[in-house]
Amino acid sequence: MKALLIVAHGSRRQASNQEVMDLAELVAQRQDNSFDLVESAFLELAETLIPDGIEQCARAGATQITVMPYFLNSGKHVTQDIPEVITAIKPQYPDITIDVTEHIGASPVMIELVLQIASAK
Amino acid sequence: MKALLIVAHGSRRQASNQEVMDLAELVAQRQDNSFDLVESAFLELAETLIPDGIEQCARAGATQITVMPYFLNSGKHVTQDIPEVITAIKPQYPDITIDVTEHIGASPVMIELVLQIASAK
Repeated sequence: MKALLIVAHGSRRQASNQEVMDLAELVAQRQDNSFDLVESAFLELAETLIPDGIEQCARAGATQITVMPYFLNSGKHVTQDIPEVITAIKPQYPDITIDVTEHIGASPVMIELVLQIASAK
Repeated sequence: MKALLIVAHGSRRQASNQEVMDLAELVAQRQDNSFDLVESAFLELAETLIPDGIEQCARAGATQITVMPYFLNSGKHVTQDIPEVITAIKPQYPDITIDVTEHIGASPVMIELVLQIASAK
């Protein structure tokens, strides 16, 4: 049972957090998505925090959790903070494989996205 | 002559700013990009700032500048700060059309991007 956990920074502005939760919902609704469960979580400032997001996936029966940093740049949050949280949490879930993907800013699809928005103008 | 100006927040970490500059360069290199010029600029903390970015495009001969907020969420930077900078600068360039696109987090292509990274894992 595969789960995708989209992890954003988290904001004091709830509307920004809601945008991330909405994105997770839209990804979950996609027929070609290979995950049984798609959830969102936040590094700080907002609920659900990452450990609670992992726990939710585990309770739902996930045997494999893919953590995706929803960040544009490879700053400290991406290179240190999120990996540290995941490394600290892994021993609690010895039967679950937990992997962290590249942050979204590293995707070559970002060029397509920029061109799509630019041409839509 | 059309210019695309990709506008990010700006970071004290120069490597993060460089990632945005690199993205602009990759977009510029795309054959199917409809812009004669693709530049990057920053709202704060980093050079080039937005007014200087607009000035660079103008000096290069741009008659149409598309400003694209490279932000994931529709927070204050996207809804207020960038539009205010652009509104303040427009009277200096009466012969140039300057438009601001949606921020990148609003693109439906973001779902494709998430799925691409998730499946690459």
